[in-house]
Amino acid sequence: MNHLQVGIIGATGYTGSELVRLLHYHPQATIKLVTSESKAGTAYSSVYPNLLGLTDLTLEPMSQVDQHELDVVFLALPHGASMDFVKKYTESPFKIIDLSGDFRLSNADVYRQWYGTHHVFPEGFTKRIFGLPELNKSQIQGANLLANPGCYPTASILGTYPLLKSKLVQANQLIIDAKSGTTGAGVKPKPTSHFTNVHDNFKPYGVKTHRHTVEIEETLTSHSGEQAVVQFTPHLLPIDRGIIATIYAQPLTEVSEESVKGAYRDAYQHAPFIRLRDQPPAVKDVRGSNYCDIFTTYDERTHRIITISAIDNLVKGASGQAIHNMNLMFGLEETTGLIHAPINP
Amino acid sequence: MNHLQVGIIGATGYTGSELVRLLHYHPQATIKLVTSESKAGTAYSSVYPNLLGLTDLTLEPMSQVDQHELDVVFLALPHGASMDFVKKYTESPFKIIDLSGDFRLSNADVYRQWYGTHHVFPEGFTKRIFGLPELNKSQIQGANLLANPGCYPTASILGTYPLLKSKLVQANQLIIDAKSGTTGAGVKPKPTSHFTNVHDNFKPYGVKTHRHTVEIEETLTSHSGEQAVVQFTPHLLPIDRGIIATIYAQPLTEVSEESVKGAYRDAYQHAPFIRLRDQPPAVKDVRGSNYCDIFTTYDERTHRIITISAIDNLVKGASGQAIHNMNLMFGLEETTGLIHAPINP
Amino acid sequence: MNHLQVGIIGATGYTGSELVRLLHYHPQATIKLVTSESKAGTAYSSVYPNLLGLTDLTLEPMSQVDQHELDVVFLALPHGASMDFVKKYTESPFKIIDLSGDFRLSNADVYRQWYGTHHVFPEGFTKRIFGLPELNKSQIQGANLLANPGCYPTASILGTYPLLKSKLVQANQLIIDAKSGTTGAGVKPKPTSHFTNVHDNFKPYGVKTHRHTVEIEETLTSHSGEQAVVQFTPHLLPIDRGIIATIYAQPLTEVSEESVKGAYRDAYQHAPFIRLRDQPPAVKDVRGSNYCDIFTTYDERTHRIITISAIDNLVKGASGQAIHNMNLMFGLEETTGLIHAPINP
Amino acid sequence: MNHLQVGIIGATGYTGSELVRLLHYHPQATIKLVTSESKAGTAYSSVYPNLLGLTDLTLEPMSQVDQHELDVVFLALPHGASMDFVKKYTESPFKIIDLSGDFRLSNADVYRQWYGTHHVFPEGFTKRIFGLPELNKSQIQGANLLANPGCYPTASILGTYPLLKSKLVQANQLIIDAKSGTTGAGVKPKPTSHFTNVHDNFKPYGVKTHRHTVEIEETLTSHSGEQAVVQFTPHLLPIDRGIIATIYAQPLTEVSEESVKGAYRDAYQHAPFIRLRDQPPAVKDVRGSNYCDIFTTYDERTHRIITISAIDNLVKGASGQAIHNMNLMFGLEETTGLIHAPINP
Repeated sequence: MNHLQVGIIGATGYTGSELVRLLHYHPQATIKLVTSESKAGTAYSSVYPNLLGLTDLTLEPMSQVDQHELDVVFLALPHGASMDFVKKYTESPFKIIDLSGDFRLSNADVYRQWYGTHHVFPEGFTKRIFGLPELNKSQIQGANLLANPGCYPTASILGTYPLLKSKLVQANQLIIDAKSGTTGAGVKPKPTSHFTNVHDNFKPYGVKTHRHTVEIEETLTSHSGEQAVVQFTPHLLPIDRGIIATIYAQPLTEVSEESVKGAYRDAYQHAPFIRLRDQPPAVKDVRGSNYCDIFTTYDERTHRIITISAIDNLVKGASGQAIHNMNLMFGLEETTGLIHAPINP
Repeated sequence: MNHLQVGIIGATGYTGSELVRLLHYHPQATIKLVTSESKAGTAYSSVYPNLLGLTDLTLEPMSQVDQHELDVVFLALPHGASMDFVKKYTESPFKIIDLSGDFRLSNADVYRQWYGTHHVFPEGFTKRIFGLPELNKSQIQGANLLANPGCYPTASILGTYPLLKSKLVQANQLIIDAKSGTTGAGVKPKPTSHFTNVHDNFKPYGVKTHRHTVEIEETLTSHSGEQAVVQFTPHLLPIDRGIIATIYAQPLTEVSEESVKGAYRDAYQHAPFIRLRDQPPAVKDVRGSNYCDIFTTYDERTHRIITISAIDNLVKGASGQAIHNMNLMFGLEETTGLIHAPINP
Repeated sequence: MNHLQVGIIGATGYTGSELVRLLHYHPQATIKLVTSESKAGTAYSSVYPNLLGLTDLTLEPMSQVDQHELDVVFLALPHGASMDFVKKYTESPFKIIDLSGDFRLSNADVYRQWYGTHHVFPEGFTKRIFGLPELNKSQIQGANLLANPGCYPTASILGTYPLLKSKLVQANQLIIDAKSGTTGAGVKPKPTSHFTNVHDNFKPYGVKTHRHTVEIEETLTSHSGEQAVVQFTPHLLPIDRGIIATIYAQPLTEVSEESVKGAYRDAYQHAPFIRLRDQPPAVKDVRGSNYCDIFTTYDERTHRIITISAIDNLVKGASGQAIHNMNLMFGLEETTGLIHAPINP
Repeated sequence: MNHLQVGIIGATGYTGSELVRLLHYHPQATIKLVTSESKAGTAYSSVYPNLLGLTDLTLEPMSQVDQHELDVVFLALPHGASMDFVKKYTESPFKIIDLSGDFRLSNADVYRQWYGTHHVFPEGFTKRIFGLPELNKSQIQGANLLANPGCYPTASILGTYPLLKSKLVQANQLIIDAKSGTTGAGVKPKPTSHFTNVHDNFKPYGVKTHRHTVEIEETLTSHSGEQAVVQFTPHLLPIDRGIIATIYAQPLTEVSEESVKGAYRDAYQHAPFIRLRDQPPAVKDVRGSNYCDIFTTYDERTHRIITISAIDNLVKGASGQAIHNMNLMFGLEETTGLIHAPINP
């Protein structure tokens, strides 16, 4: 296998900088291009001084993508910008891994309904592969256009999927109470991510209406054959990274602590980044890593299953998972460059 | 009305220091006694330097309670210690407001089941009044032994009660996903409240088993006539103060956004510390104050009611509510000394 | 004394909202006007939901200042905007308390040098009084245009002044290493106050060049008769409120622990908001209050005096001090409405 | 070179767990022994669940050190416990890297003076090498007993040393105002590291008396030939990791911005973990890595040099530096396994 030549489009956001950080550890990939329209010409390490001495790349405009012989391009662009790029470069020789939400849903109509935007490249939906390796590794291996899942959906789907796959629960009675660190809101200063609005604070947002709801529902439905209906309530945590999804499900049948735990073991026996836990995980158990830690339990008193799922939203919920997908798309060992020791404290 | 003479037993914990802080603003009460067994003889302001110049009290041992002519005694003791005090001083002339969990439940058997401890004064349960003013103001007015509610139960019950009172939801299908600041864990250093275990972190705890579950269930049951069953999942927030309870309820009947909101308006029309909100509240909206902010909404898509309730666990969830109860027990205007502007940022 | 009629110009920033919060407790002042150009017509409590139920004011444009019979107007405007207001309303019947930096320095030339802006109303400098009550109470009592000190200068000057006043130290060898919470950066989202740039982080800024340097130097010089030269280094703390100034001074003469502490006792014997401490203060000892806590000590080993000064930047460093100045300007007892118990935790 | 067999004595504290985390990336070392007296028999990953799946080690009692053929033993023990181990195992075949303060000072008398404890193995001081690779790489290469520097001393000495080496400043007029994250206080719950005492708070401690003062002074003196006198003031930051040292020095001679910066370039031209910065560094620029970022500048106005030094106290200030020393002691390339991309955000 040759060394992969990598481009990162929109490299100055958090998923972009996290790709740079993580690819530092990848033995078979080299970043050749990092782009920014507003900061073109600037050394990458002057935007992210933590990477000083680790990269000597200079930011270029996106149009330079043709000047490099790239094997794979990561789109670390905002929703709405990725589809323009994909439309323009759909015939290019490089594979595309899109970290935005532009190709995660099933079609342009659903996209317009939840994202409130007209989709410029509906054809993309027929080709794109949704890249959650624990659910559809073999499909990913053949992908040329990969839609990298959202952060909340990754934690939510991984925490719920075994229950649906094993037909243990009512698919239309799922409640996912999720909590995310603030990097999920992006690098751009906004009132919602202003320090004093977040620090020592906590609140829900997007109640009933968050667009990750449909991504979770569509994925669970298509992978379980049951019509999933999800009550999804996100909350903003005063931390940098990390998502905890607390999932409540109603058993369809008689279940036991053991049968529930068994469903997770079965579903994830070949999933190197899933760690099944015997205690509820904390954000710091996975911080900085590509792990998804899952704890599940059955409450006999209430006849309900409670599952806790924890990820780092920038790694397993974005850039780490994107690299995992890259490994699969290029026939590399799937864990290559991704086995990191979570940083705690 | 004379000035109330107040004693605080166990004054060096967070509920104790918060009583001192809040009573600073009370025009009709004066603290005469603050106790600590381990720090007796020490100036209160050397334990809490924030209060330097605001109080010249010196800590005394609890046994000094007889040396003061007190009207009311607040027990800011750990669970298990309050009952000893109540047993010993049950015939004393002062009224008792117990901030611990020792008299919140219905009887000694339930107490032993959830607290794992034998109760030394079961007789207390027949006399004690559970002090949630929004539910039972008139009872509180006649109380001599008042059980001040727990912090999670306060947020949870206030967020749920109107739905049960109006017979809008299934009482046995309640899910309360709650998140609390770390002061709830007390002043004593423990691994669970060690800075590096909490900061930039988040996790659930007490899944299925938290003792506040039964306090919520018993209170909702006794005030609604329906047998409440609650799935209660607490989580630890990396903040000092504040609780957010996210409550999921299944409508019994046809409901609408308006009928649901109406149930809350009806239930709380005479509740000066409840603020019904048209947006989900944040912790900082209530921090430092005795307010409970509540937002409720009906999701037509999922046929579910979602309610968000926010309090400051040390004020409305503990010491502020205790003072509210004191006001009622002594015939004062109920808001006396308690209308504070929440501190934000 | 009649009730004061108060206007707050630029009321949606942090010093504005803090004025509203603090004046809630003031028995002799009522807010009649809160202004915002961009949010005129909006209920104040919809911008600051923490104040819901505590104020029913609606934001008005600044031009409405003439429609109210105001005794005093607080300018909670950015630097550069206050001078326009002062110029325009210099003949108005109300007194002006300016919380910006526009009139803190000695003249328009110094202003241009450190603020990089032409001053539109140089005449203001001849009339304005610098309002640090611990230094010049009697002047403040006669002020019509009051320049409220900066947050860093308040902590820095109060920590240093007794040493210069007593001629104990070299005025031109002062080092002030200061650390501030993020509210000092204002309410407007910027990269420097973006949550993920501040949280779990710490860094210096404005090394050698911060404009508060000259405010400290000019004030210390004019009140001590010695030419003060200050090395001022600010740092950004991942907290909301609070400043700690760590001050290093070189004794001019033989000093002792006792003589140094005595200088502070002498200087502040009539200062109700100064609390001299026998241990280094923490931010939380003063949070939410108008106190300035000061600890000083002499290091015999190094022949140096070290002083630690702590304030809440939004209260003693801004809005609380402004109200203190208002009290003095209108002949009220100086502590009126300002004796708050710092909130900790 | 064979693979190094590593033991970690006292592996459950923060420096111990950080050694495990960092050695995960080391291609030429394998951990064979992790010890804990109180948790012997427990899986390491049940104490540090973040490392689940990355290590299958089980904690053993310290006495098991003889049962393994170890090349090197890291002592991650508290001050006072290391010297017992060193005394007992001084003739053992393995090299010892002591992360405690027991052998950092020059002799047992100085130790007793600053640590308040009798030293049980004064002979150790004659053999031990102080392990700051930027100052004494060649000595370290021959060490059998290595005293790993303290966290504050590492940041302080690296920020100051070039100025003394180049004879640019007065050695007896150094002021180091340092700020550290809370992991520096260790894993054991204490009031000083209780979440609510640290969070949203900030304060100095150990003013005039902190024991790292003498470690800094002795090291600077021995490596510069000038008698260094340091005013060292530590402060506790509400963050997990990271130290910022703000250093003030008085030029001896005429200096310029360029001559000052040149002194640092000269001193560190062969130091792979020093990054000279043209802006003041932030903690997050180095977090999780072995880098020490340094910014220096000369203030013409005040005739003073200001230097800012930033490290991660658990990596460059402890475990990373210990591994760096191990690499040198065993003839490995010094950066082996240590070039990490700092994690930000």
